[in-house]
Amino acid sequence: MTAPLHQTHPAGPGRATPDTQQGMRRRNLARVMHTVSAGGPLSRAAVASRIGLTRAAVSSLVDELIRSGLLEELGPERPGRVGRPGSALAVSGRGPAGVGAEVGVDHLAVCAVDLRGQVRARAVRYGANRGRPPEPVAGELAGLVRRVVAEAEGQGLWPAGLAVAVPGLVARDARTVVRAPNLDWQDTDLGALLPGDLPLTVDNEANFGALAELWLGDGTPRDFLHVSAEIGIGAAVVVDGRLLRGTRGFAGELGHVPVRPDGPECACGGRGCLEQYAGEDAVLRAAGVAPGEDRVGLLAGRAAQGDEAVRRALRDAGTALGIALTGAVNLLDPDGVVLGGALAGLAPWLLPSLRAELARRTAGPACPVSVSELGSEGPLLGAAHSVVRGVLDDPASVAGRS
Amino acid sequence: MTAPLHQTHPAGPGRATPDTQQGMRRRNLARVMHTVSAGGPLSRAAVASRIGLTRAAVSSLVDELIRSGLLEELGPERPGRVGRPGSALAVSGRGPAGVGAEVGVDHLAVCAVDLRGQVRARAVRYGANRGRPPEPVAGELAGLVRRVVAEAEGQGLWPAGLAVAVPGLVARDARTVVRAPNLDWQDTDLGALLPGDLPLTVDNEANFGALAELWLGDGTPRDFLHVSAEIGIGAAVVVDGRLLRGTRGFAGELGHVPVRPDGPECACGGRGCLEQYAGEDAVLRAAGVAPGEDRVGLLAGRAAQGDEAVRRALRDAGTALGIALTGAVNLLDPDGVVLGGALAGLAPWLLPSLRAELARRTAGPACPVSVSELGSEGPLLGAAHSVVRGVLDDPASVAGRS
Repeated sequence: MTAPLHQTHPAGPGRATPDTQQGMRRRNLARVMHTVSAGGPLSRAAVASRIGLTRAAVSSLVDELIRSGLLEELGPERPGRVGRPGSALAVSGRGPAGVGAEVGVDHLAVCAVDLRGQVRARAVRYGANRGRPPEPVAGELAGLVRRVVAEAEGQGLWPAGLAVAVPGLVARDARTVVRAPNLDWQDTDLGALLPGDLPLTVDNEANFGALAELWLGDGTPRDFLHVSAEIGIGAAVVVDGRLLRGTRGFAGELGHVPVRPDGPECACGGRGCLEQYAGEDAVLRAAGVAPGEDRVGLLAGRAAQGDEAVRRALRDAGTALGIALTGAVNLLDPDGVVLGGALAGLAPWLLPSLRAELARRTAGPACPVSVSELGSEGPLLGAAHSVVRGVLDDPASVAGRS
Repeated sequence: MTAPLHQTHPAGPGRATPDTQQGMRRRNLARVMHTVSAGGPLSRAAVASRIGLTRAAVSSLVDELIRSGLLEELGPERPGRVGRPGSALAVSGRGPAGVGAEVGVDHLAVCAVDLRGQVRARAVRYGANRGRPPEPVAGELAGLVRRVVAEAEGQGLWPAGLAVAVPGLVARDARTVVRAPNLDWQDTDLGALLPGDLPLTVDNEANFGALAELWLGDGTPRDFLHVSAEIGIGAAVVVDGRLLRGTRGFAGELGHVPVRPDGPECACGGRGCLEQYAGEDAVLRAAGVAPGEDRVGLLAGRAAQGDEAVRRALRDAGTALGIALTGAVNLLDPDGVVLGGALAGLAPWLLPSLRAELARRTAGPACPVSVSELGSEGPLLGAAHSVVRGVLDDPASVAGRS
């Protein structure tokens, strides 16, 4: 589980495992885990019939998964079923947990999610991280991780891996933050700054947000564009249930799509990029609101109270998003666009102009735009769940580690 | 081979075949074909050692491929090799051929390509197709197909399938042209208009052009954006050696990415789309050149002679392409951009401003832009080769059909 994120296994678990006896057992362990995870509690017989293996074969797999602490027996099934009562199997609420972390511009957050998908421990620390060097930020994050791990361990869980969401571009090594302009970080090897006792994956927050949407969202399509924002605007492209990462891992930079080619200069070197119109700083400026803590809450509050300057600024941001998304939709032809992160909280005031702009520029029905129900929790949950998915996809990778 | 284009098999042949005895033989037939295709002529022993099967197993596979007319024996290998002389194997220059066809705005073209990748027959008919109903165009195309097939059959080949490139959006059924604005076609079931005796695949010309680039180009990366133009501007997105098709099959509509959101109205319903600045009609208008036959040749000729109005029009088109490609590169993070089709012929006058615009708008090194050596032949060759690839990827699909 050193690179769980590259193993999102859209076509089922263990696809890449070589086709040996051992590989087949590994894949079958994953099949059992996914079957119980999706449909449990289930008897051994029910698992066997669902995955098309003999009951004896399934029993041997189940025994191994119970020994590893990944499955547990709930005791005899309730009576009334045909045949000898079997013991119902469920994914363990103890055993391995995924630890997710988020480096935000204004906060740090860590959570632990068990194999059932429940958040079992959580810690947040508010405070501006912009302009702080990576070392103290990573140090504080490590402290939060230790606290969450200790709390999880107190409940019989153990950490299977750590996944960290950052607001910036991450290299394909899944540990180096190449550029995080809103933190002022550049070429930062986050892997070297965090404790080395857990398998680590670092990824862009929009990517983790998109994975959360894919895994936890209600009816999320398998081809979509996930757009989120904190100070900058990030996007993640999901094609057939997989993240499109790009050659360097930088795909999804919607914030630097030119909206008005002669517009204001942008830090990226361009002009009139989307961030100049729909980034938080730009919206605050246009609304005449001084930046402070909880900027999204501030904007949403004022907009809800009817502040016309704020509403106009958000309307214009929606229009700019609509222009940039028209280009993205033309290039990618997704099933839908999902607004997440800070954008989700501002959706009531962004969406009308965004949708109108997209419709105006589209022949035929416009691409549907929806709002994430996970909102700003998406990246953190996506990070933790990416570790959990890694365990479900290859239970053998953590067997014997409990 | 009814859907060869969805089977581009980036990770090797026959991936999707179920894992049965028969499936394994199918995959091994493909392995032998690809090995001889890539490295032939080769002896049976050399094939066996390259794919890691016993010589006996390879001989049985080779015999089947020879019987099906896919491989041929060249006779005893030249002396001087160690051991008993074996007969060298080569991909057959007879046997199955891929028939590619192109519906252009100003021409129809058909060619037959053998398993060795050689064009063995070719027919072209010049004449404007814009505004003509699909029936007579398809009728003429069918005539050219018959002529090319007859010529190929005279050389001992037989057609394994027909792939047709069209300048428009094609549904995922790979036969319905949903919208081809430059032909004035809409919801045209091309499959019903062409003779039904060959397995048929219809696809967008930019997609076939991109596949030609991927298969025949020298050093083409596996992640790239292929941009081509006839009257409109199309693009194809290749990710890890596979076409990104989009939910409806419409991905790659670079021509309708907004470049100047308040620019001139476009037929798509939008404003200031790339086609309004870099499409052929727009460039001809800006250059003050009357549209006629061979517009690209006309523009290239005038530009080469130093016509300043034409050069300025092409320079401005390059700038507009640079703006639209900045957005695409930010979203997709490809290894490179390849200009193909009509754009390849105009590259000397488009590229400087295009590259400058892309560099100006990019922090760090800009995405490299190169020019296709296949030029306007790309889509036709890509179509024919897609059929050939289908045979190499699954030789069993055509066995016994000769």
